[in-house]
Amino acid sequence: MRIASAQINPIIGDLKGNCEKIIAVIKQVKGSADMVVFPELALCGYPPEDLLLHQEFIDAIPSYLDKIVQASQGIVVIVGTVRKNLSDGEKPIYNSAAIIQDQKLLGFHDKWLLPTYDVFDERRYFEMGKSLQTWEFFGKKVAVLICEDMWQHAGYVGWTRYPCDPINELIDKKPDLVINISSSPYHFQKPEQRFNVCAKAAKTLKCPVLLCCQVGANDQLIFDGYSMYVTPPGNLSRLAKGFEVDVLWVDDQEEKASLPNDHWGDLYRALVLGVRDYFHKQGFTKACLGLSGGIDSALVACIAKEALGKENILAVSMPSRFSSEGSKTDAALLCKNLQIPMKEISIEGPFESFLNLLEPCFEKRAPDVTEENIQARIRGMVLMALSNKLGYLVVSTGNKSELALGYCTLYGDMCGGLSVIADVLKTQVYGLANWINKDKEIIPRSTIEKAPSAELRHGQKDTDTLPDYALVDVVLQAYIEDFLSPDEIIEKYKVPAEVVHKIIRMIHLAEYKRRQSPPGLRISRKAFRVGRRFPIVQKWV
Amino acid sequence: MRIASAQINPIIGDLKGNCEKIIAVIKQVKGSADMVVFPELALCGYPPEDLLLHQEFIDAIPSYLDKIVQASQGIVVIVGTVRKNLSDGEKPIYNSAAIIQDQKLLGFHDKWLLPTYDVFDERRYFEMGKSLQTWEFFGKKVAVLICEDMWQHAGYVGWTRYPCDPINELIDKKPDLVINISSSPYHFQKPEQRFNVCAKAAKTLKCPVLLCCQVGANDQLIFDGYSMYVTPPGNLSRLAKGFEVDVLWVDDQEEKASLPNDHWGDLYRALVLGVRDYFHKQGFTKACLGLSGGIDSALVACIAKEALGKENILAVSMPSRFSSEGSKTDAALLCKNLQIPMKEISIEGPFESFLNLLEPCFEKRAPDVTEENIQARIRGMVLMALSNKLGYLVVSTGNKSELALGYCTLYGDMCGGLSVIADVLKTQVYGLANWINKDKEIIPRSTIEKAPSAELRHGQKDTDTLPDYALVDVVLQAYIEDFLSPDEIIEKYKVPAEVVHKIIRMIHLAEYKRRQSPPGLRISRKAFRVGRRFPIVQKWV
Repeated sequence: MRIASAQINPIIGDLKGNCEKIIAVIKQVKGSADMVVFPELALCGYPPEDLLLHQEFIDAIPSYLDKIVQASQGIVVIVGTVRKNLSDGEKPIYNSAAIIQDQKLLGFHDKWLLPTYDVFDERRYFEMGKSLQTWEFFGKKVAVLICEDMWQHAGYVGWTRYPCDPINELIDKKPDLVINISSSPYHFQKPEQRFNVCAKAAKTLKCPVLLCCQVGANDQLIFDGYSMYVTPPGNLSRLAKGFEVDVLWVDDQEEKASLPNDHWGDLYRALVLGVRDYFHKQGFTKACLGLSGGIDSALVACIAKEALGKENILAVSMPSRFSSEGSKTDAALLCKNLQIPMKEISIEGPFESFLNLLEPCFEKRAPDVTEENIQARIRGMVLMALSNKLGYLVVSTGNKSELALGYCTLYGDMCGGLSVIADVLKTQVYGLANWINKDKEIIPRSTIEKAPSAELRHGQKDTDTLPDYALVDVVLQAYIEDFLSPDEIIEKYKVPAEVVHKIIRMIHLAEYKRRQSPPGLRISRKAFRVGRRFPIVQKWV
Repeated sequence: MRIASAQINPIIGDLKGNCEKIIAVIKQVKGSADMVVFPELALCGYPPEDLLLHQEFIDAIPSYLDKIVQASQGIVVIVGTVRKNLSDGEKPIYNSAAIIQDQKLLGFHDKWLLPTYDVFDERRYFEMGKSLQTWEFFGKKVAVLICEDMWQHAGYVGWTRYPCDPINELIDKKPDLVINISSSPYHFQKPEQRFNVCAKAAKTLKCPVLLCCQVGANDQLIFDGYSMYVTPPGNLSRLAKGFEVDVLWVDDQEEKASLPNDHWGDLYRALVLGVRDYFHKQGFTKACLGLSGGIDSALVACIAKEALGKENILAVSMPSRFSSEGSKTDAALLCKNLQIPMKEISIEGPFESFLNLLEPCFEKRAPDVTEENIQARIRGMVLMALSNKLGYLVVSTGNKSELALGYCTLYGDMCGGLSVIADVLKTQVYGLANWINKDKEIIPRSTIEKAPSAELRHGQKDTDTLPDYALVDVVLQAYIEDFLSPDEIIEKYKVPAEVVHKIIRMIHLAEYKRRQSPPGLRISRKAFRVGRRFPIVQKWV
């Protein structure tokens, strides 16, 4: 049996467009493939969120599924879709795989395990599947599962322990092949985890596992692709491309593939894909951003250029009285290296104007964070004005460490349609910058080497206000991603207690800022907003 | 049996403070009451959101529960808490009622029905309860339920049909009394719905129902209180206060109470409570806001003054070349009526300064929305600077109709810590203004009567860009709250098709703005952000 696993990039809610993409692949592989497989919810894109609550959206799906059925002459098609739950149960729809052969809709597998944690809200919409069967194609028994159905068996299910395990349920059915259609979002080093999940199932069931993945980015979530075929007892036999539309061909021939091992490269490609899809799926082409001469905005400029093309990027340097000469020349050098245009717009005029305007209200109080925020907000306003007038979308350049601690200005450097590195820790920013510079100096060495500074007052350094980022990031990862307690962090990482408590206090105090931040691309196991939901008003911390 | 139903106002995560509040009430009623009842999750406050994922938070709860047990000498206590699920099941905790008597923890009722729709995410955290029993106190059989447990029976469960119904399960057990501990968020006219739910259960079970409610606001959610006692076959016998901490006393004496019928007054009190708790629970006392002379900011000024006291409000009038004389005098008159101070700060200086700065970048393009947004953003910056320097929290003043259609400026009039009327439709803004003026003109009549305008260019009217608000609001309610399809809206409300489609398109296009809006107080059946979760990038609409 020859199978084409179609790693497609659907757009959320675009039933017509996604259906056309699916049918185009069916036509393309027909003749060469006996079966073609598409990802979880391929027809509506994953995650469709509350679009699923619009009855006319649900009602529109069967007619598109029918077009796929019509296009399936001479081939087996397995495709992710929504279907109505017409019997009992809490929710009126299922997250399903339609199993189609030769213009006949043979039936469905309804997803059993509905992740309702982190970025997943499937119990909000879907009813659990009730049965599990195998399907016979060309003399082989095939089991079809959907994403999470396979994850309980390997134990990677955050804060959840499902009372059933579809892999164990399949043991007695002795399938010859397991096909898992999936929309599994990327995080740093996720492909390895996915391989472990496939290998565990292949080992238990003593049969190969084909994982067909969605690729592309939808809002905060990035889907890396890397569809894979794993043979028992756990050999990676074939691997699709990462971060690209691809068709993975599978047949009976034994082959060997290797897991991706360029983790920084993958992280970079994830962010590029995140930017590109956010823009292109909405019909935007051009981005502008503020370049401070620092490492964060330099990294974002590299990513945006890679995603959208150098002709579509406008870098804006907005120096003030506090900007160092080095920052200005670093920004200009970066633009030269990237071959992107740069405008320099001094913020001194409006800054003076605001200080004069507000002086009578300020009751002779000493300069403080107010004046710093005014500078950041003027920069935000300049970028938004360029956006409004010239059609650029602003990308914001703050990193996760800043956002975690609130070391950023609401309506200032937090302005933008998309926050590109909002889930990238400061120490990871350096990792990415070094990766970008691996062959050639793109990001100026002085940008990488100088001490981080917001340059909002004379001689300012981030470390005036914050602990060292190496410490900060250890605590952030332990607290935010691993949910360790303060005591566990102090014990495990030997960070001074007062530093740990200070950081955790800062995280919770900054919740109100994050509530108004632009959507940020998720690349960690726990990203603000999409996967982490805390009250603003609380007294636990 | 004499029962005190304690309608308390817990703070999220404040185990120590909430425990002290609970014990204070126990002490207060002991001697007069045989039993005292507290709301759902009273110990940690509702909703605690992802605090529930911190193990040290869960681990801290039993010691506080134990303090309550120790305080229960001579009285029955029923109190909402989290408890660990030590047996099988998907999630490691239950949403429970602890049943305590005379320093003994008798057991728990674990919530059966876990709402996972709209603002509720209970399946993200909690395992469903598995059993249902009655408890014998003073010769009476008492059933204890938690909030949603009772709602399936009356059919008010959005997009959900639970496979079981605790009220039906109780029929054979013939309880003498049902106690429901609840944290049921307010929306317009919600108390009537809650009464219907109680009445339905009382009728089916032929026994009285005591509903004990949380009061107070937590982030976007407002809890109105109105605990009630309903006797069969459905008579409202007693009603606690709305929007205030209260103890409702229940005994065997038959009494009669009436449902609240001042719907506008309740809506006003809900918003006042929402503002007050957002501020005071965080330790803030002072609010500032921009006063345009229009009806939205006038309404918010009234609410903020009522919530925080006139000495804690600063109104800021920020006229530009486009501000009418009427707007300026209306703003001043309102402040006089409210006895709140007003600062006037002209934005002409910074506006000129920005226009000069940006002129070389604007490529001689005609004035457009860019210049309008610059004005709104300067106003936002002024308010934020006053906030930073003088310690005011900015409250933003946009209404739901504007926010739905994107008729508002990101980082401009959308600035603020709390968006007070973000869930109040423009037509409801008029309803509230008239209610405020019922005895005396507080909001100037000319503010109410003039045509709505953003005054960001000469002669601008909202209706230049938007359909009439009476039409807009009908479509918004039908589409956002009732999930009607465009065709159903056209058919039901006889709104022209092109208007319906335009409005729906605008709603989805403005998703990116709402993603960055401040939290808004929820007062409708479907509020942006907290209860409505749509992708930014989508092609369904």
